Amino acid sequence: LIARIRRQGRGGRGVLKGIGDDCAVLRIPPGHEALVTTDFSLEGVHFRREWHPPESVGHRCLARGLSDIAAMGGDPIAVFLSLALPSGLPQSWVDRFIKGLTDLAKSFRVTLAGGDTAQSPDGVLADVVVLGSAPRGKAILRSGARPGDKIYVTGSLGGSAATLKQLMDGRKPSSRCHDRHFFPQPRIEVGQLLRRRRLASAMIDLSDGLSTDLAHICKESSVGAEMWANVIPRATIGNAPVALEFGLHGGEDYELLFATRPKETVPRQLGRVAVTEVGRVIRGRGMFLLGENGPTVLQAQGWEHFRKAR
Amino acid sequence: LIARIRRQGRGGRGVLKGIGDDCAVLRIPPGHEALVTTDFSLEGVHFRREWHPPESVGHRCLARGLSDIAAMGGDPIAVFLSLALPSGLPQSWVDRFIKGLTDLAKSFRVTLAGGDTAQSPDGVLADVVVLGSAPRGKAILRSGARPGDKIYVTGSLGGSAATLKQLMDGRKPSSRCHDRHFFPQPRIEVGQLLRRRRLASAMIDLSDGLSTDLAHICKESSVGAEMWANVIPRATIGNAPVALEFGLHGGEDYELLFATRPKETVPRQLGRVAVTEVGRVIRGRGMFLLGENGPTVLQAQGWEHFRKAR
Repeated sequence: LIARIRRQGRGGRGVLKGIGDDCAVLRIPPGHEALVTTDFSLEGVHFRREWHPPESVGHRCLARGLSDIAAMGGDPIAVFLSLALPSGLPQSWVDRFIKGLTDLAKSFRVTLAGGDTAQSPDGVLADVVVLGSAPRGKAILRSGARPGDKIYVTGSLGGSAATLKQLMDGRKPSSRCHDRHFFPQPRIEVGQLLRRRRLASAMIDLSDGLSTDLAHICKESSVGAEMWANVIPRATIGNAPVALEFGLHGGEDYELLFATRPKETVPRQLGRVAVTEVGRVIRGRGMFLLGENGPTVLQAQGWEHFRKAR
Repeated sequence: LIARIRRQGRGGRGVLKGIGDDCAVLRIPPGHEALVTTDFSLEGVHFRREWHPPESVGHRCLARGLSDIAAMGGDPIAVFLSLALPSGLPQSWVDRFIKGLTDLAKSFRVTLAGGDTAQSPDGVLADVVVLGSAPRGKAILRSGARPGDKIYVTGSLGGSAATLKQLMDGRKPSSRCHDRHFFPQPRIEVGQLLRRRRLASAMIDLSDGLSTDLAHICKESSVGAEMWANVIPRATIGNAPVALEFGLHGGEDYELLFATRPKETVPRQLGRVAVTEVGRVIRGRGMFLLGENGPTVLQAQGWEHFRKAR
C-alpha cells in the first residue's frame, strides 16, 4: 500500500519530500499562510461499502478536505491519508479506493504526500488531511459577515441528501443526477475567484447542510440571517427538483455559502458554476425562512441528526 | 469536546486561526519550509486501556508526531487531533486523554489547532497530525548518509519495549524507569541543535526499533552499516540494563539515530541528552552487528512483528 501510494505521490508542485522520510517537506508560496483541514471518514457513518463504490469513497474522503480549502479561497497543495483497514478487505477495494482519491487529487494538481496505515478493528477508517495556502491575511473566514450583506450559494442544493434518501429506501441510483452524492466537485476555482475579486466577506462550505452551515457563519460573525425559500436552488433528480427540506438541511453538497457587502455585484456564474442570491444578513442572532406563508424560524438541523431521521 | 479543545487551542505562536473555521490558518516563518507528519494510534494496536492511563495515551499519540519533527531537525508549530470514540467511553477518560496530549503540546509551545471527532465502531482511534517548519533546504533527511559516516544514538534504548514485555507478562510497572514507555520525551531540542550545528548527514527517530529504523536510513541513503553491540546504550530498569535484543529491536523509545561525517566532533551530550557513537556507515547494503563472537548479520526486525512475538 505504501509503495503504491508512494508511486502516486511523486513530483508534486510544492512537495519537496513526500513519502519516505519522517515528515513530508512542503513549500508554502512566499507571502502565503498555510491552511490545514482534517476530516475523519468512517464506514457506517460517512459511507457504506454496499452503497458506495470504492472509487466514490476515496473521492468523497478527499472532497471533504478540498471543499474546506475552497471555503477559505485557498489553493490546495498536498494531501495526507491515514487509512485503517479491516482484515479480509479485498485488495481490489483498496486499489479502487486509492484510485478514486488520487484521481480527484490529480484533477486539482494535489500530491498525496504522506500518511499512515493501520489495521482497523472494524470497518474502513480514513482520516484525510489537506494542506493548502492563501495569501497572507486573505483567507476568507466565517467571521466577516455584517448586517446588510447579501447571501449567496453556488450550484444547487439537496442532491446529495436526496440520493442518500433513495439509498436508504433501498433504491439503486443509476443516473448522472446522483454524481453530486457519489462524486461531489469541490468548488476550489470559485473560492479562489471570490478571494481574488475580494467579493466574499465570509464563507463556508455546505457540508452539514444550508441551515447548519449558515448557523456557523451567524455564530462566528455574531449576526442573523433571513433566507428566501422560493429562490434556493434545488438540485434536479430525473426531471424534478428535490424537496425543499433537502435543499435547506441536506448535507454533503460541498457547494459554497458566502456573504458579500451590499454594494458588490456578484456575477451569476463564477468558473461556470451558477451563483444564486438566497438571503440577507441581519442584526441579532436569529435565522428566518421567508416563504409563501410568511417568515418562520429556520432551525439549524444538524446533518447527522437529519441523516439518521430519514 | 470541540469546545474543550477550542479552549486549549487559543493564542498559539504561528496559529492565526485555530478551531472554528473551515481550515486552520498558520504562519510558516519566512524562509522556512513546512513539515507534516501523521500518525494513527489505535486501541489494541498502539495502546490498551487496561495498561495505559489515559494521560499516557494522549501523550504517546502526540509524542510520535513530535518525534518525527525532531528527526528532521524541525520546530513544531501546531497539532491536529482526529479522534473517534466508542459509545460508552467515560467522559473522564476523554478529559484525561486530552490533558495528556495538551500538556505535552504546551511543553513544546505547540497549539492544538484543529481536528475532527467521530463515533468509533470499536475502540479509541486517534490520528494526530503535527505541522512544523525548518529553514529552507535544511531539514535533515534519511537519505544523506555516506560510507565512512559515524552513527550515533541519543539517550538509551529498549526501555519502552522492556516495559511492554512486563505488561504482557502481567506485571504492573510502577517505577519512574518506565516513564520512557508511558511518557516518552521527543528529542526536539537535540534535533534542532544537530541541524543548527550541521552535524547530522542523515537522521531518523527510533519509533520502530534500532534495526528497523537503521534499515530505513540504509535504504534511503543506499548504504550499509556496522553496529557495535557492546556500546549500544541500554536503558536501565531497576538496577539492571535491559536485554540487548530490546535495545536492538524494541520500538517506541523515540530517541534519535543519526549519521555524521567522519571529520565532525559530536559532543557527548546535546541539550542534556547523552549521545553515543554506536557504529559506522559502510558500502553496500548490508547491516552487521559486531559482538563478542565476531560479526553477524543484523536483521531488521519490524517492531510490529517483534511486539507480537514477545
